[in-house]
Amino acid sequence: MATLSRQTEQPRLAAHSTCKIALTGFGTVGTSVARLLYARSGHPLRLTHVCNREVARKKVDWVSSDVTWTEDIEEVLASDVDVVVELLGGLKPAHDWVRRALQSHKSVVTANKQLIAHFGSELLELARNHGLYLGFGGCVAGGVPLLAGLHDGLAGDRLVKIRGILNGTCNYVLTRMEQGGRSFAEALREAQQAGLAEADPTEDVDGLDARAKLVIVARFGLNVDVRPEQVVCRSIRNVKAVDFVYAHELGCTIRQVSTAKLCEERIYVVVEPTIVSRSSPLAGVSGAENLIVSTGDFGGDTIFAGRGAGGDPTAVAVVSDLLQVARCRSHGLDWPDRLPARSCEVTEDLELPRYVRFVVRDRVGIIATVASIFARHQVNLDAVLQKPGYAKSELPFVITLEPCKRSQLEAALSHLEGADFLAETPFTMSILQ
Amino acid sequence: MATLSRQTEQPRLAAHSTCKIALTGFGTVGTSVARLLYARSGHPLRLTHVCNREVARKKVDWVSSDVTWTEDIEEVLASDVDVVVELLGGLKPAHDWVRRALQSHKSVVTANKQLIAHFGSELLELARNHGLYLGFGGCVAGGVPLLAGLHDGLAGDRLVKIRGILNGTCNYVLTRMEQGGRSFAEALREAQQAGLAEADPTEDVDGLDARAKLVIVARFGLNVDVRPEQVVCRSIRNVKAVDFVYAHELGCTIRQVSTAKLCEERIYVVVEPTIVSRSSPLAGVSGAENLIVSTGDFGGDTIFAGRGAGGDPTAVAVVSDLLQVARCRSHGLDWPDRLPARSCEVTEDLELPRYVRFVVRDRVGIIATVASIFARHQVNLDAVLQKPGYAKSELPFVITLEPCKRSQLEAALSHLEGADFLAETPFTMSILQ
Repeated sequence: MATLSRQTEQPRLAAHSTCKIALTGFGTVGTSVARLLYARSGHPLRLTHVCNREVARKKVDWVSSDVTWTEDIEEVLASDVDVVVELLGGLKPAHDWVRRALQSHKSVVTANKQLIAHFGSELLELARNHGLYLGFGGCVAGGVPLLAGLHDGLAGDRLVKIRGILNGTCNYVLTRMEQGGRSFAEALREAQQAGLAEADPTEDVDGLDARAKLVIVARFGLNVDVRPEQVVCRSIRNVKAVDFVYAHELGCTIRQVSTAKLCEERIYVVVEPTIVSRSSPLAGVSGAENLIVSTGDFGGDTIFAGRGAGGDPTAVAVVSDLLQVARCRSHGLDWPDRLPARSCEVTEDLELPRYVRFVVRDRVGIIATVASIFARHQVNLDAVLQKPGYAKSELPFVITLEPCKRSQLEAALSHLEGADFLAETPFTMSILQ
Repeated sequence: MATLSRQTEQPRLAAHSTCKIALTGFGTVGTSVARLLYARSGHPLRLTHVCNREVARKKVDWVSSDVTWTEDIEEVLASDVDVVVELLGGLKPAHDWVRRALQSHKSVVTANKQLIAHFGSELLELARNHGLYLGFGGCVAGGVPLLAGLHDGLAGDRLVKIRGILNGTCNYVLTRMEQGGRSFAEALREAQQAGLAEADPTEDVDGLDARAKLVIVARFGLNVDVRPEQVVCRSIRNVKAVDFVYAHELGCTIRQVSTAKLCEERIYVVVEPTIVSRSSPLAGVSGAENLIVSTGDFGGDTIFAGRGAGGDPTAVAVVSDLLQVARCRSHGLDWPDRLPARSCEVTEDLELPRYVRFVVRDRVGIIATVASIFARHQVNLDAVLQKPGYAKSELPFVITLEPCKRSQLEAALSHLEGADFLAETPFTMSILQ
């Protein structure tokens, strides 16, 4: 048996020349990054600055005493730090700070998905022009090494589709609705109590968080530039407990699914609540986990899954990026560049099977009326589902449709608008194939 | 809407200086690599040599006419190729050829897991000393970017365990036994007919293939050097259809599971058929797929899954490595080195719950006898399972045990050796927690 070396505590980091790190933003993720750096030894990363508003109340006693605590980004930019870690979130002042950091010849590592979704191309160009590194592995799927996998590990494939559960809050809410029979409002409150949803949950439940991640994934997996506002987002707010009853009847469940798919010369980029077969890997994702399936022409489906959010998993991604910077520095090289992306037209007009939930004031002939309107729009019914036990005055029933375009579906539903039997606007979801 | 650029066919490869490629071995994977290179344009990789025994019968008309077809490795080594792709398999002559390629200042990309498991450290050292790149992403899990994920994307974490289904053939055989009620021999024959098992299936079913992959995974995920012969391998040959009956009774199934786990100063490295809860992601892996779960102190569990074998997925990994070589070359840099590994003592003495299947000639008092022997070895019984409908002369029953060390289990079973009621040697499996 070989003898045991003395490196047991710290096997995974190579010794390189020191790389000086400034953390801007010392909240949950920033604290985790610092803890991770101090929990390990033998690596080349040295924390030298922490920059935060009201920094006095942020000070902790477990970081080295020679760390500079400051509220002033100018002090960071004027210092000799090698890498600025941006963990402020949002666009202001993050965009300005990151730009100025690069202009001050500092590499940048960020976990700010909105920043990269909106300004990634500009900032990468700036980094490249200055021979600097811009790392953003923490922007998508927390600790799951998705971007490294897509960009490096699957570089040899021709990826055509990336689909997944990119927002842990929505997944938590939907699984609570499913398992606990909660309403959306109740499940959301539970998520807020568990620290998994903000007081204003808009970013998460309306799809804006997943949208930013999908833009980044489309850029680095499919090499297509999509602007965030081009991504179709549908909220999970309109999902009701009864939808899970009907989804189960179909052998399915409901997930917030983000999809970026190349369709010849166009790209389909949508974030929406979706009917998902129970046999799909997406259905198996519980709580706040993330799961992403990439599909390539050669390698087929590849799955990445894990903890998509939280301080420690995101800190793992940030520190992995920092090690990459250190590795590049030690070789004195031009940083590996990212590929230029192409733009392409965004489409939502795929033919997909659909789920439509009606809530009606029951009377004779409703299904006949609805069916005839769908028929007039060349939309074929797949099944009509009606569970017993609901009040006649607010009776939910579901129609599933054979694959049709969204434009067809909307045209048919617009014909139903104002029909006296409708107690609510019909709610639709795609059915994942 | 942004206009569509002309790069639709080939978005994922950057233009760099040409990188000349020699393929040694033009079987399934080699052909797929060549097809992948020709299916795409705009990348810097150019096939210049194909080297294979009896090369005349290998020639295809769809590669460029200026490709040199040869049976002579010397011709490749004397040429100006930048990278030798080694797809021969086995240790001879692959080891010698790869060493000589590096000594001839050619980078190497290989999908040869046995070569890397046995000689990876030596060859990486040689590559590093010559400032060359040695890529081997195709050695483990085919197209799944596991090694890139472990080595780069999770570099910031401290990984403590890597567990997975690394051999698609075993998984196919076991899922056929489960779903089709086949015997091991029948399921193996089906795998052979489907082209998923060799005429001599030893490498796969006895765990030698998974063992080589586990050695590589331990090296690049946990940073520990393990020699292949140190890995405990147990064959799936002894799994019977009746074991699935009892596994189902336990809410479980059976998978060939490979585990590398750090236990303080030691490492547990085992490949064996294992009882796996149906709720585990490992249970959801069907057919010839691979799935790996890495566990880190900070990021928790991360899952990688996909097509673990076959020409095209393995070719994706090979071409991804080739692109990495091209990217490094274009920057004129020292190749990124791999971290030095440490050695540590190998152990199998974890306390695990166990499954023991007995086949007995039934008579009064057998369970009492068995239970008393387990008690004498401080092993607690968890449950005794006996399904009706079997012949008294060859009656299978199962005892599950509370966590105990393998040494305890073996000591107890050795006390039963030669007992007149045993119709067969008891068969044991760990129960995955």
